[in-house]
Amino acid sequence: MITKLDDTQMQIGIDSFAAAYDDASLAVSASDRLRNLVEQIEHADQVGLDVFGIGEHHRREYLDSAPTVTLGAAAVRTHRIRLTSAVTVLSSADPIRVFQNFATLDLLSQGRAEMVVGRGSFIESFPLFGLKLEDYDSLFAEKLDLLLRIRENEHVHWSGKYRPALTGQGVYPRPVQNPLPIWLGVGGTPQSFARAGALGLPLMVAIIGGETRRFRPLIDLYRETGKRFGYSPDRLRVGVHALGYVAPTTQQARDDFFPGYARAIASVAKARMAGRHPCRFRCAADSAGRAARRQRRRSSREGCSAQ
Amino acid sequence: MITKLDDTQMQIGIDSFAAAYDDASLAVSASDRLRNLVEQIEHADQVGLDVFGIGEHHRREYLDSAPTVTLGAAAVRTHRIRLTSAVTVLSSADPIRVFQNFATLDLLSQGRAEMVVGRGSFIESFPLFGLKLEDYDSLFAEKLDLLLRIRENEHVHWSGKYRPALTGQGVYPRPVQNPLPIWLGVGGTPQSFARAGALGLPLMVAIIGGETRRFRPLIDLYRETGKRFGYSPDRLRVGVHALGYVAPTTQQARDDFFPGYARAIASVAKARMAGRHPCRFRCAADSAGRAARRQRRRSSREGCSAQ
Repeated sequence: MITKLDDTQMQIGIDSFAAAYDDASLAVSASDRLRNLVEQIEHADQVGLDVFGIGEHHRREYLDSAPTVTLGAAAVRTHRIRLTSAVTVLSSADPIRVFQNFATLDLLSQGRAEMVVGRGSFIESFPLFGLKLEDYDSLFAEKLDLLLRIRENEHVHWSGKYRPALTGQGVYPRPVQNPLPIWLGVGGTPQSFARAGALGLPLMVAIIGGETRRFRPLIDLYRETGKRFGYSPDRLRVGVHALGYVAPTTQQARDDFFPGYARAIASVAKARMAGRHPCRFRCAADSAGRAARRQRRRSSREGCSAQ
Repeated sequence: MITKLDDTQMQIGIDSFAAAYDDASLAVSASDRLRNLVEQIEHADQVGLDVFGIGEHHRREYLDSAPTVTLGAAAVRTHRIRLTSAVTVLSSADPIRVFQNFATLDLLSQGRAEMVVGRGSFIESFPLFGLKLEDYDSLFAEKLDLLLRIRENEHVHWSGKYRPALTGQGVYPRPVQNPLPIWLGVGGTPQSFARAGALGLPLMVAIIGGETRRFRPLIDLYRETGKRFGYSPDRLRVGVHALGYVAPTTQQARDDFFPGYARAIASVAKARMAGRHPCRFRCAADSAGRAARRQRRRSSREGCSAQ
């Protein structure tokens, strides 16, 4: 991920879903994969990256359904790097547990925890936790309201539609950082950009498909909304989660990266065709399909598995 | 805690609630206290203790509302010691999240995770998560049933009263150990001992007050029930969570340990008087009160704070 703090300062980091798609990664035991991930975070800390994020999914291909447990491990093996979710699926979580997990992580890491909260792009957590997809947005709005209330107050007074009321109960532990950083993770929905601006929350944009420049008007909308709600520009920070791969040459990066990417996106598209992903991945899968077709035109390399 | 595996083998370990009651511990920052706890677990591993447990509370005095985050940290700083909850308050948790947290811990620790699940002795988690105290036992019974179903099956079919049904959803990640060890944590309720026996689950008895020998008939009940339900004796293991303190002499142990213990129990008793603890701590607080009176008769040492 890349985060622009102001005109002169930019943070750079890596996100992982602890995913396994191809035969090589599936041959490694799940235990070794997760321990390797902690070693990668340790290495990222040593070479000076600013931040490392772990996603949240509830699928067989990923090992990240409980990201704060793995981030807790990373907390005591690192010194400077910031540790975040990428993205916490707040719609299907209890904001109290989310806050407790990240506050504990913040204590263990001596103030290096952050969280990015979103509605979720994959939607398997909805049936898993007994939620209705038609409440996709209202669940998120209500839970975000509660999460921010918990961040602000040790004793919480709150009532809502989807969860029993709180009448002054305390939420513990309290984190080192006050406020604990909470980013709003968004896809391509304009209302989400406007919501982040209206709340004065920093914005994390997931660009998992399509062209980066098409997000410019949405980021303008975020900044304008934030300004209208009275937040100063330095509070309206913007980050991007994007796919990336570094290699000595552009062609080698393409050849190394594309087969696995195509397989991952094809898997998402297949799930979508089965009606399980009506949400945010639609445009990603569509644009990935176009990218795959372009890539096939450009490359005749054997082993390219885009189908 | 002490666990008797068979006639010749016994495991010994330590539990912590990451508690702070006295001025000395409150003077240490919460972040340092939690990092010190991870160092204690590392030390316990090095000196050869068998197991380390972290409790679950939702109170200002403790830092253990998210125990698996801290246990995750311990997992990558230890090699042999087993890591467990002591006790997971299953009644107010979602069994899916509980399983995901401990399965992730099991992967990080290469198969050293365990959990002890119970109804909870403190009850502050009930209003916090919007539950009714009158459902104290039925919530636990239902959630234990679901937890065991998840442990047994990757894809879960289940329905109950307190949570939406599962219709074949997968729960990930899967742990290294199959089955992931689940102990049933009990206080002094005979029905809880019988339940553990009927399910063939290992038993963890919390003896936080009162005399150890009065638990003998209850443990007999556990073994008899287990036998009646067809479980072999080697499966019916018994562990004890008890207060303990080691010093060069009995008197020194008394002098070191008693003031803090008295303060902790007095705090519990006070909360109980305010009507917030109708449950398991009643007998503990009563017997602690008797112990405090006995102790005052025996010791005239200044600083004894039992009131």
